[in-house]
Amino acid sequence: MKKVTVFDSTLRDGAQAEGVSFSVEDKIKIVKALDRLGLDYVEAGNPGSNPKDLEFFERIKSVELKNTKIAAFGSTRRRGISPSEDGNLQALLGAGTDTVAIFGKSWDFHVTDIINATLQENIEMIYDTILYLKENGKTVVFDAEHFFDGYKNNAEYALKTLDAAVQAGADCLCLCDTNGGAFPDEIYDITKLVAEKFAVPIGIHAHNDCGMAVANTIMAVKAGAVHVQGTMTGFGERCGNTNLSTVIPNLQLKLDYSCIPEENMTELTHIAREVSEIANLKLNDREPYVGKTAFAHKGGMHIDGVSKNSKSFEHIDPSLVGNERKFLTSEVAGRTTILSMIKKIAPNIEKSSPETTRIIDRLKELEYEGYQFEGAEGGFELLIRKELGKYKPFFELETFKTIGEHMSNENMQTATAMIKINVDGKTEITAAEGDGPVNALDKALRKALEVFYPSLAEVHLTDYKVRVLDGNSATASKVRVLIESSDGEESWTTVGVSKDIIEASWKALVDSIEYKLIKDIENKYKSFL
Amino acid sequence: MKKVTVFDSTLRDGAQAEGVSFSVEDKIKIVKALDRLGLDYVEAGNPGSNPKDLEFFERIKSVELKNTKIAAFGSTRRRGISPSEDGNLQALLGAGTDTVAIFGKSWDFHVTDIINATLQENIEMIYDTILYLKENGKTVVFDAEHFFDGYKNNAEYALKTLDAAVQAGADCLCLCDTNGGAFPDEIYDITKLVAEKFAVPIGIHAHNDCGMAVANTIMAVKAGAVHVQGTMTGFGERCGNTNLSTVIPNLQLKLDYSCIPEENMTELTHIAREVSEIANLKLNDREPYVGKTAFAHKGGMHIDGVSKNSKSFEHIDPSLVGNERKFLTSEVAGRTTILSMIKKIAPNIEKSSPETTRIIDRLKELEYEGYQFEGAEGGFELLIRKELGKYKPFFELETFKTIGEHMSNENMQTATAMIKINVDGKTEITAAEGDGPVNALDKALRKALEVFYPSLAEVHLTDYKVRVLDGNSATASKVRVLIESSDGEESWTTVGVSKDIIEASWKALVDSIEYKLIKDIENKYKSFL
Repeated sequence: MKKVTVFDSTLRDGAQAEGVSFSVEDKIKIVKALDRLGLDYVEAGNPGSNPKDLEFFERIKSVELKNTKIAAFGSTRRRGISPSEDGNLQALLGAGTDTVAIFGKSWDFHVTDIINATLQENIEMIYDTILYLKENGKTVVFDAEHFFDGYKNNAEYALKTLDAAVQAGADCLCLCDTNGGAFPDEIYDITKLVAEKFAVPIGIHAHNDCGMAVANTIMAVKAGAVHVQGTMTGFGERCGNTNLSTVIPNLQLKLDYSCIPEENMTELTHIAREVSEIANLKLNDREPYVGKTAFAHKGGMHIDGVSKNSKSFEHIDPSLVGNERKFLTSEVAGRTTILSMIKKIAPNIEKSSPETTRIIDRLKELEYEGYQFEGAEGGFELLIRKELGKYKPFFELETFKTIGEHMSNENMQTATAMIKINVDGKTEITAAEGDGPVNALDKALRKALEVFYPSLAEVHLTDYKVRVLDGNSATASKVRVLIESSDGEESWTTVGVSKDIIEASWKALVDSIEYKLIKDIENKYKSFL
Repeated sequence: MKKVTVFDSTLRDGAQAEGVSFSVEDKIKIVKALDRLGLDYVEAGNPGSNPKDLEFFERIKSVELKNTKIAAFGSTRRRGISPSEDGNLQALLGAGTDTVAIFGKSWDFHVTDIINATLQENIEMIYDTILYLKENGKTVVFDAEHFFDGYKNNAEYALKTLDAAVQAGADCLCLCDTNGGAFPDEIYDITKLVAEKFAVPIGIHAHNDCGMAVANTIMAVKAGAVHVQGTMTGFGERCGNTNLSTVIPNLQLKLDYSCIPEENMTELTHIAREVSEIANLKLNDREPYVGKTAFAHKGGMHIDGVSKNSKSFEHIDPSLVGNERKFLTSEVAGRTTILSMIKKIAPNIEKSSPETTRIIDRLKELEYEGYQFEGAEGGFELLIRKELGKYKPFFELETFKTIGEHMSNENMQTATAMIKINVDGKTEITAAEGDGPVNALDKALRKALEVFYPSLAEVHLTDYKVRVLDGNSATASKVRVLIESSDGEESWTTVGVSKDIIEASWKALVDSIEYKLIKDIENKYKSFL
């Protein structure tokens, strides 16, 4: 198996997509996810153009990564100054990464008409910059911007820019189809020629403006490229970048290249969805390999064929990438998955048991209302328990009230919640203040319950997500709230849906607390069960 | 210019996508839209497997079409009966179209293991069926199902199935990559061989399971295919079909093939969006050529380059396909974008003016707090006005209070908002109920303001989005609220950020209302300004 290096640019080119704006916290979470998948590089930002990135580079130093190296991104030096005088290059060094990606112009038109340099000046800018970075001990990827457009316009000059990079010591020549206008056969021919000409490893960076970024990347690898750039779920400037969640299995499962550790391939679907969640960009349901409907069959003949032999209408077994088959018009949909979760709670229940049917019916009802239990396993476990009667409520709510107040004069705002609950006949009433009504209610509920269940003091909320389900009715839309909680040992996610964000949050909060209390009982009485 | 016939299957293969379910009315609307674009064929359904389709075929007869022919779709006859005894084939004839598409098995494995026929029986099924349809005067497209998988497994047999179709008189041999697992170079080689072997026109039908349907289609055309199948916006079974809204401009604008009448190309974006609307599937923003962000630029250097010469970062001029360029506002965006927005309000301000610097500084500050103005142009315009002093508040808030109440016994929940505002010394106090506190506050604010500004009655909220910015502090996280409003003529988006969702929504609501009131003044006093 030949190794192909995977270089992810979700945090840099991906951040150029409309609607994407990462916090430092988001960026760190994405790096950790991509490290778990086993990518070789994550390009994390351009410290020269975005000072906020420096905080990230500082913080990531203390994060332990198993597989992934961090790269910083920047441009060749400006005209007329030396690299050591260039503030952007200084910021790039300041990022403190071992690897840097440097883009330079390979299209003569861009040199003369966009940055107003002479062709010779541009060659020197490439050479000086890379030499300077090599002198500073960096591993340097040279991103030859617009290489294919440049080659088609002036092949000799485009090759000269690569040659300058090689002379200066570049460790990789990454050929970029920056405008996304190239075709697979062109990419193949040009990459092959470059790979034969230079002894340095060749990379490919494609964009999807003609809907062919994945194919262009594959054809470049077939022509000799050994380094592929893209973004985990394909988002990026304009139509996006090469989708790595498609390219990786295409190369590794079908063409026998090695991209990520073999045992991690089953994590692919999960991690693609996680990255989408963090970016708050909905993953396309039809996304190859990792989408929700990537292995969904609706046509009767297709369902029949797949039931006889899955290869009749599936190009791979979905479990290879951690995805699953779905029969859209059939009652057998997903039973196997659901059954495995039921069996965790009641090992003697079978696929054909009436309980299984009842749970599936309830699940369908809730999904119709807007619930989604993918990524909310805690909530799903409670649902199963309720249907099986393996559940009793830990408290009764008598009433809660939230009050938000905003006084203009003092520019003051407050949020308060009052709550009254009942546990085994004893009532507890209390109140709390918070940042907004949901936070106040969260605090008040915990305060009241801790009187009865002291172990709740260990629990804290680690994530809170809101998704509006139906944009059309605007502020009266339904919202889905996902809450992730942790007690330091384990973390779990629960979900609530309502038109009222407070009500939706309340449902998810209650499930989160009940999940913890059930877990405590299980642990305490394990030997009795 | 060589003609490539375009054969759309939105109503047949597209209807196999999850979440898609067309009424007869929807189908007729889509046919009319595709006819306006100038497609050659619309495959409209399988009357044998879906009797509801017969109503469509009946009604479409009276619709006058300029460019498009309707095709019905069906399977080869069943084993052991003659075509005239096969109910599905009778239904197919009953559809009354001039053209029919007939699929038959080209993969030996499918013949023996899925339909349990002998290889010879299958050949006869293909031959008899096509012969029968030709005797009935039909133009016949033979869809060679799983042709590429079949060819790779047993080339001799796969070719024999095509030969049977040709012998029976098929008018087109469409090679199908039914499972979507083929690669562009394979598609090219196999299609080329077939095109050289048979004198009949060759077609290509690709699926997107490896993310390469478009590239596979293009490579087949380069190898000699002259008929392309797909769906207008790419949706279909599993990962979908070849996206025609990408393939058509790829072929026509870049490879000099003729797919649709030249003068209709500028309708492409509009019609792709219309078809998505009718199917009620959101068109992917990043969709090549026709997506909302297909020509959106966010990186400062990209914006700068495109401003100098659009071909620097655009593979085609967006107006060729009826789409438009967009400069996104963001911390990585350059001065050029921001300046063009400032100039709309104050035409005499320049890139180097101190006002420009002040606005950019304010923008960076707000973005650091979590604001994001891309897609919130309304909010950005207000920000500019405030910095330029071209703004005065339309009302003063004295106080608002929101109350959420949940009573367990009656399982009752309510949300109420009370508000007191002041306009030119007159106060107005009012209250409203809603689905949740934000909705209640929205209603109360409008109610209070309509007393002074009756034109606000025209405004309604059309979208409401919430994004949690920093998951770690959970229910105390910062949220960003985006509100889209419309007065029936124009729509605009505003943004608010706070730890309290009510406060964040309040900020976006106030901006939304002020934007409307400023617009009204501008329209009213246009001649004075």
